[in-house]
Amino acid sequence: MYNILDKYEDLDDIKNMSNDKLKEFSSEIREFLIEKISKTGGHLASNLGVVELTLSLYKVFNLKKDKIIWDVGHQAYVHKILTGRRDKFDSLRQFDGLSGFPKRSESPYDAFDTGHSSTSISAAVGIARARDLSKENYKVIAVIGDGALTGGMAIEALNDIGYKKTNVIIILNDNQMSIAKNVGSISRYLNNLRLDPKYNKLKKDVKSKLQRTNIGSEVANSIEKIKGGIKQMVVDGMFFEDIGIKYLGPIDGHNIEELIRVISKAKEVKGPVILHVITKKGKGYKYAEENPNKFHGVGKFDLKSGEILSKSKDTYSKAFGRAILEVAKNNNKVVGITAAMTDGSGLCPFSKEFPERFFDVGISEQHAVTMAAGLAVSGYRPIFAVYSTFLQRAYDQVLHDVCIQKLPVIFAIDRAGIVGEDGETHQGVFDISYLSSIPNITIMAPKCVEELEYIIKWSVKQNYPIAVRYPKGGDDILGSIVPLKEFTYGKWEILNDGKEIAIVAVGKMVQRALMVKNELLKFGINCAIINATFIKPIDTELLNKFARDNFKFVIIEDNVLHGGIGSLILEHLNSEKLKNDVLTLGFKDEFITHGSTEILYKLYGLDVKSICEKIISFK
Amino acid sequence: MYNILDKYEDLDDIKNMSNDKLKEFSSEIREFLIEKISKTGGHLASNLGVVELTLSLYKVFNLKKDKIIWDVGHQAYVHKILTGRRDKFDSLRQFDGLSGFPKRSESPYDAFDTGHSSTSISAAVGIARARDLSKENYKVIAVIGDGALTGGMAIEALNDIGYKKTNVIIILNDNQMSIAKNVGSISRYLNNLRLDPKYNKLKKDVKSKLQRTNIGSEVANSIEKIKGGIKQMVVDGMFFEDIGIKYLGPIDGHNIEELIRVISKAKEVKGPVILHVITKKGKGYKYAEENPNKFHGVGKFDLKSGEILSKSKDTYSKAFGRAILEVAKNNNKVVGITAAMTDGSGLCPFSKEFPERFFDVGISEQHAVTMAAGLAVSGYRPIFAVYSTFLQRAYDQVLHDVCIQKLPVIFAIDRAGIVGEDGETHQGVFDISYLSSIPNITIMAPKCVEELEYIIKWSVKQNYPIAVRYPKGGDDILGSIVPLKEFTYGKWEILNDGKEIAIVAVGKMVQRALMVKNELLKFGINCAIINATFIKPIDTELLNKFARDNFKFVIIEDNVLHGGIGSLILEHLNSEKLKNDVLTLGFKDEFITHGSTEILYKLYGLDVKSICEKIISFK
Repeated sequence: MYNILDKYEDLDDIKNMSNDKLKEFSSEIREFLIEKISKTGGHLASNLGVVELTLSLYKVFNLKKDKIIWDVGHQAYVHKILTGRRDKFDSLRQFDGLSGFPKRSESPYDAFDTGHSSTSISAAVGIARARDLSKENYKVIAVIGDGALTGGMAIEALNDIGYKKTNVIIILNDNQMSIAKNVGSISRYLNNLRLDPKYNKLKKDVKSKLQRTNIGSEVANSIEKIKGGIKQMVVDGMFFEDIGIKYLGPIDGHNIEELIRVISKAKEVKGPVILHVITKKGKGYKYAEENPNKFHGVGKFDLKSGEILSKSKDTYSKAFGRAILEVAKNNNKVVGITAAMTDGSGLCPFSKEFPERFFDVGISEQHAVTMAAGLAVSGYRPIFAVYSTFLQRAYDQVLHDVCIQKLPVIFAIDRAGIVGEDGETHQGVFDISYLSSIPNITIMAPKCVEELEYIIKWSVKQNYPIAVRYPKGGDDILGSIVPLKEFTYGKWEILNDGKEIAIVAVGKMVQRALMVKNELLKFGINCAIINATFIKPIDTELLNKFARDNFKFVIIEDNVLHGGIGSLILEHLNSEKLKNDVLTLGFKDEFITHGSTEILYKLYGLDVKSICEKIISFK
Repeated sequence: MYNILDKYEDLDDIKNMSNDKLKEFSSEIREFLIEKISKTGGHLASNLGVVELTLSLYKVFNLKKDKIIWDVGHQAYVHKILTGRRDKFDSLRQFDGLSGFPKRSESPYDAFDTGHSSTSISAAVGIARARDLSKENYKVIAVIGDGALTGGMAIEALNDIGYKKTNVIIILNDNQMSIAKNVGSISRYLNNLRLDPKYNKLKKDVKSKLQRTNIGSEVANSIEKIKGGIKQMVVDGMFFEDIGIKYLGPIDGHNIEELIRVISKAKEVKGPVILHVITKKGKGYKYAEENPNKFHGVGKFDLKSGEILSKSKDTYSKAFGRAILEVAKNNNKVVGITAAMTDGSGLCPFSKEFPERFFDVGISEQHAVTMAAGLAVSGYRPIFAVYSTFLQRAYDQVLHDVCIQKLPVIFAIDRAGIVGEDGETHQGVFDISYLSSIPNITIMAPKCVEELEYIIKWSVKQNYPIAVRYPKGGDDILGSIVPLKEFTYGKWEILNDGKEIAIVAVGKMVQRALMVKNELLKFGINCAIINATFIKPIDTELLNKFARDNFKFVIIEDNVLHGGIGSLILEHLNSEKLKNDVLTLGFKDEFITHGSTEILYKLYGLDVKSICEKIISFK
């Protein structure tokens, strides 16, 4: 079916390909990607953007010794195809299948595991320093997007190598697009370089003028003593040159000849060098080119029409989006903040209705949280919409800038619990643990999308830090069967009275608990069902009452067991010297691989059947 | 005693002072600071550096409406003197006394609480945006050191305001010195601006040449279209101008006239502006000028001789310094990493003996951790020496870059537990909680300085992430009475067999537990004493044995209760259905104020007497 790809064996093949053949190969790889991802879902647009770049890198470098680190890593599909994993693409992001990110356990050609943004330069610096200490001789390359470059830790790394002159090659994959459209002045700076039609003409003019006149070369000479060359300084990547990193580019990231030529040049530079490559996200598939956001992380889609196949349903993200829009209409102190996740977080409608109260700060979770604290200290009600796994980046800011001052920042924590296909680096199973040990914070979880809207509306009326965690998707039906009730601070909701066994469930686990209850009724067991709307503080009064009534407790949460709500409940019961039996169900102490959420729940014994079995043997 | 200071009433007084009077006032404030801090201890050098700067700011701005945020905040003593807190300086950093950092609860002139580095610009941006949304009219000023500017979140904030053009005034207080000497290319860039003798001459030359010649102005004109003025670009703060922030300076931070003139100019700028001020840490006290590190955070000292009065003793930091030096001699894969804490962490001897294996990355904890991961993946044994409270900044990197890949990075976590005088923002009481819910990490604590050395030596032979936490100071005597024993992974050490009650203690709490045991012997109670060298994993075998022998457990840790080792033990006993009584002692769910460690231990019931009383009533 594929002329070149079908015969492709390993990286050595690329070394022998002509530029024309590489171009043909690029087209085949694109076809392969579009065809496969249309069936499995995955990160399409970013991978279509790096086909020529990946091939050119592997033409110039030798992956048997050189190390390439893919920032974020969801653009490493081409790399995977080229390093012996083509056959596994049918299993992409599925349980026991190919990971959607680089994994050292998957291939010796995966130099470093990635997943979160902005880590690649730091990792590359570490590897390069190990190389230098060992007096070895290989190249270390970080491929980082322009969006990821706004993450503070990437700049920390640039600062370090610019100073120490560590030989690392940074490929700046500039597709003008992180997940949402890039924001920020670094991005604008790159835009200026890239888009200004005067750029290339100007570059030539300045160079020739400076060379032609005495004045010019005199100026150049005296400045060179300080800054190392006016030519680079005036026209090429001053930002990078200023901090001591050689800048090359910008070059067309879909032009194989130019890529190979300039990457070869970058390879010869002694100190740190950044090569600015302009690529187009979604390149070669018109629907993805037109709408790269839609094809960023995409489900199965129809290849011909570009239509997404999964049916549209109400999600927690959408419900959050409705809620913030509504509260913002009634309260002009409500502002919305995102770190490059306007679409995913459901903030789109709000951002359009209230552009002046909407802040997309780029991939900068730390700044987002402390900026929110600044707004809160001035009487505003900032809502930071963020994924559970990305809020990890701002743990210190939550603690130090929001909670010490007890400021009314609302953290709308999406993708809490198992997220499924993205795997280890993206599972939101730590947030209850890392947040609940912080004083002054209130943590909540809605049992259904309707309750999420209710909690958001309630939260903006409070005057302290509140974290609301909710899962990906929203396939629950609870909202339509259990009517919403008003709640009181710190009080739980009893959904079924029951006998002997009380199930305390968190968020998405509440619906599951009700299903468990129905199953167990068949065995004559009638469990009390408690919706732990408040994770912190827990409802100690209710717990004490049930404990004195000799209930056994079953706690179900989609978080790691240690430090979760089960842990909070055990600590409380112990402090009250209550000795009731407690069964805590949650995730054990290991990182959770990729796969569908239901497979993973089953693997960890959190499907309805497993829970029923555990309760029966617990009883 | 003080001509001006004694008559000083409030900020309005400054408005009426002539420049000469302000100069005299500066001298008096310096005298006052040196005299007071020599008796209480505190952050001397950084405060001596900002006397004229603070006075000039308060001459130009009106603190009744304008907001000033002091980054880190330990340089806000002058601010405190000027805002009604002069009389409290005898109680500086003492329990119930004046905090060493800005605190909104202390004064309406403290706009935002600070403590950790690099937060001020983000907070200022939030406050400025609140102002703009409310259509109010006041100025927001962030005063940030050149060291703090290397922290990634500060650059995230610059990126955001450069793009959105938020009107914030940034005072870059450039004293060439964060806590250790600044490192990194941003710092070097500032150095170039500041130190190059050609700077001013060159600036003039380029300007005049460009103006005098046709070629020059032609170049200038065409470039101006893209970048807004070659003059700034070539000679003034290109780094900042590149990302859209107006740059003014550098100016002499001890020259009142110039400060007032340029700050007034900065006040009139519409968008974001950075004013580069050169100050001298320790200015006006010769011992501090000569050795600003020594007088950064200093104990009581003799005013005349500059000698530190507290007696030198062995500390955990020094013991760590000896240990890393020794292991590095025998193992050339050991490297040491710090984030601007070479002195405080005890890495000085190592950095001198093995400069090529020593990496000070500046105030960049995130980069430090992931860089360490890069070294570890390449066969090295990186040891990151970091304070407990600052490792919070890199929580995500510990989890995502080190622990998912299970890389052998060693975290040498100093200042764990109560640190005392620095208060809320610096107490190291969260690390057990935030680390122990991360899979794949081993967490340890030594009971004495000798055991710390032993653990470090042992750790470099292991092949997985290890966190070793140890307290500030080192006033224990345990090492001399309890001989060190070899240990086995995950196994605890029984220091006394005892009956009925088993005290499980962590780190520094072990010595305390032995004192408690001795006290309780007087009441006929003979507690078993267990040194929980391993916090994760806990020694389940030992626990089970003691539990079956019907011991009651008392757990003592210098960490918050939730998520700590007490929590881990409760979870284990519960999972084994063991119903033994457990008394968990640690810090309750609140931020812990400043004061001497012993006062704070007593406040939280962790002094020997309180523990004894609790055990007696528990029994």
